[in-house]
Amino acid sequence: MTLPLTISIDAMGGDHAPKAVIDSLSLIMARRPDKPARFLLHGDEAVIGPLLAAQPEAVRRACEVRHTPTEVRMTDKPSEAVRRARGSSMWNTILAVKEGEAKAAVSAGNTGALMALSKVILRMKPGVHRPAISASWPTVKGFTVVLDVGANVECGAAQLVEFAIMGEAYCRAVHGVQRPTVGLLNVGQEELKGNDTVREADGLIRASRLDLDYRGFVEGDDISLGRTDVVVTDGFSGNIALKAAEGTAKLLGGWVKEAFTSSLLAKIGVLFLSMGGLKRLRERLDPDKINGGVLLGMNGMVVKSHGGAQAGGFATALALALDLADSDFMSEIEHNLARFARAQAVEAPVLEPAK
Amino acid sequence: MTLPLTISIDAMGGDHAPKAVIDSLSLIMARRPDKPARFLLHGDEAVIGPLLAAQPEAVRRACEVRHTPTEVRMTDKPSEAVRRARGSSMWNTILAVKEGEAKAAVSAGNTGALMALSKVILRMKPGVHRPAISASWPTVKGFTVVLDVGANVECGAAQLVEFAIMGEAYCRAVHGVQRPTVGLLNVGQEELKGNDTVREADGLIRASRLDLDYRGFVEGDDISLGRTDVVVTDGFSGNIALKAAEGTAKLLGGWVKEAFTSSLLAKIGVLFLSMGGLKRLRERLDPDKINGGVLLGMNGMVVKSHGGAQAGGFATALALALDLADSDFMSEIEHNLARFARAQAVEAPVLEPAK
Repeated sequence: MTLPLTISIDAMGGDHAPKAVIDSLSLIMARRPDKPARFLLHGDEAVIGPLLAAQPEAVRRACEVRHTPTEVRMTDKPSEAVRRARGSSMWNTILAVKEGEAKAAVSAGNTGALMALSKVILRMKPGVHRPAISASWPTVKGFTVVLDVGANVECGAAQLVEFAIMGEAYCRAVHGVQRPTVGLLNVGQEELKGNDTVREADGLIRASRLDLDYRGFVEGDDISLGRTDVVVTDGFSGNIALKAAEGTAKLLGGWVKEAFTSSLLAKIGVLFLSMGGLKRLRERLDPDKINGGVLLGMNGMVVKSHGGAQAGGFATALALALDLADSDFMSEIEHNLARFARAQAVEAPVLEPAK
Repeated sequence: MTLPLTISIDAMGGDHAPKAVIDSLSLIMARRPDKPARFLLHGDEAVIGPLLAAQPEAVRRACEVRHTPTEVRMTDKPSEAVRRARGSSMWNTILAVKEGEAKAAVSAGNTGALMALSKVILRMKPGVHRPAISASWPTVKGFTVVLDVGANVECGAAQLVEFAIMGEAYCRAVHGVQRPTVGLLNVGQEELKGNDTVREADGLIRASRLDLDYRGFVEGDDISLGRTDVVVTDGFSGNIALKAAEGTAKLLGGWVKEAFTSSLLAKIGVLFLSMGGLKRLRERLDPDKINGGVLLGMNGMVVKSHGGAQAGGFATALALALDLADSDFMSEIEHNLARFARAQAVEAPVLEPAK
């Protein structure tokens, strides 16, 4: 039996590992006192040990270091990683979920390797042909779940339908939306626009009569508007959209900062603003508050942190793992997939995945 | 012989036409006193006439109304538009460029129809297989030219190479960058990442030894960072990236506004900020200051305004048309295409466009 809220962590993954990872632990414990957790830290004990020793006692008590002599490099190809990664920190992080020691795994390491190892160790859920990475995208209304944001650079129409099903279940479990609306990302809302794959996926979703609140095509700007709770796309367009939005947010955040520090008068203005509502804007513009993609479609929960995350950002990925570990996410996914399997049984020839 | 700086305008195209179009004329004349222009206004004289009569005399004197009884609807399919559009305001707007009466055409109408009619009327330049729409994307350094942002939902590798060539020439002509750097949009900077088409295009650009300062793959967040002066992608990903960024800019702009008006103290703070550098931020966040995609690859210049543009936004598209009309853009494109043709002659089997 899995212990509740045990999180398995790849302490060696990411640009700022292991320091950012270890430093994130006190942040998450302060941020989520309602969800006390145990942390399994996988990595080089000789490096992790001293970092952990410098932490408050409460952090040290919550942690268990699992020594691993090797690690997956950011530059490893996924195929290499699968061959060479057995016993690495990333491998053991995922394995702890497979073996029921932890409820979710978190790594800021190489995305392709994390995906490949997760598939090998956890295996795909029956009925899922391709995993997806979902991101929670801030909107005027809260968050929109966008998937796939990078696991699959080429997707067939049937994969997009699977993503719709998994994304809807994920949105309900993690964001608490009872009946999430689902849109398919395209270059225009009219049915005549878009490439063949999205048009085919649109037809498949409509024809297979899944129990989804499907709203048809949405465009790139509809994501931030929160037009639907879930936005489905292939990993190429999804990754580009997500990163284009991140870049824009950074650019605009920099402009705001510049305006606030451009002169003495501006700085006096910011003093008044600080007393009158600036805090919320600062929080909203804090990139650390948005981090963590979830690998969907496997028998186990894996959270991918941004590779460049510092301690604050990694803590956000840990918070997501805690929320997932404490949710009905897996049963939601299974429930939805069973529905899809029934639809497939009826419409088998149509829903065969593309080669 | 084309008269210098005569702009041909589709007065009936766009969500707010013809009012936004007519109202934009005094704005552009005030914004660009250095570039006095003549405007040919194509559309329903009965509607345009009274709107124009309400304008200042200087505006009226710069305009010539060309009556057209029909117009292309926003919902027309491109194929329908080509069949039915002869003599419409959009058709005649483009025709004036073809016939040398105007140096550039501007329309906020249906993108697909504008592209289709431009191809029929102006014809593709020799050596260009597919047109592209380029956008100028604000960055930390200035602007990055991104193309294609919506003309082609599916592109082969050879088309991406053509886009690189056209985009580089466009960047030099319009943004005055002597030696623009060029990147190919992908999901990762490592060569092993990405889909087959972008990997093939990367190989083609390197193999054909074009005289381009090609920097390899860039990611979505590199656009706003201004990592290269030109970013090349297919119209599906490009459109989604552009709109995702627009949506993010709107969201963040709304947050800033909210923070500035959330309380009396905040409003006092903004008073000080206004004296100390807020104006620049306001201008930078003004969506009207970014509008206008240029249709590249045809024998004539066509600017596409955002369909939802109000007068301020349409004036920005007109400013772009004036800059183009006053630049060496067409000869730059031709020079680059000649280079490409020489490379094709050497590497003909490799550079055949995909079917």
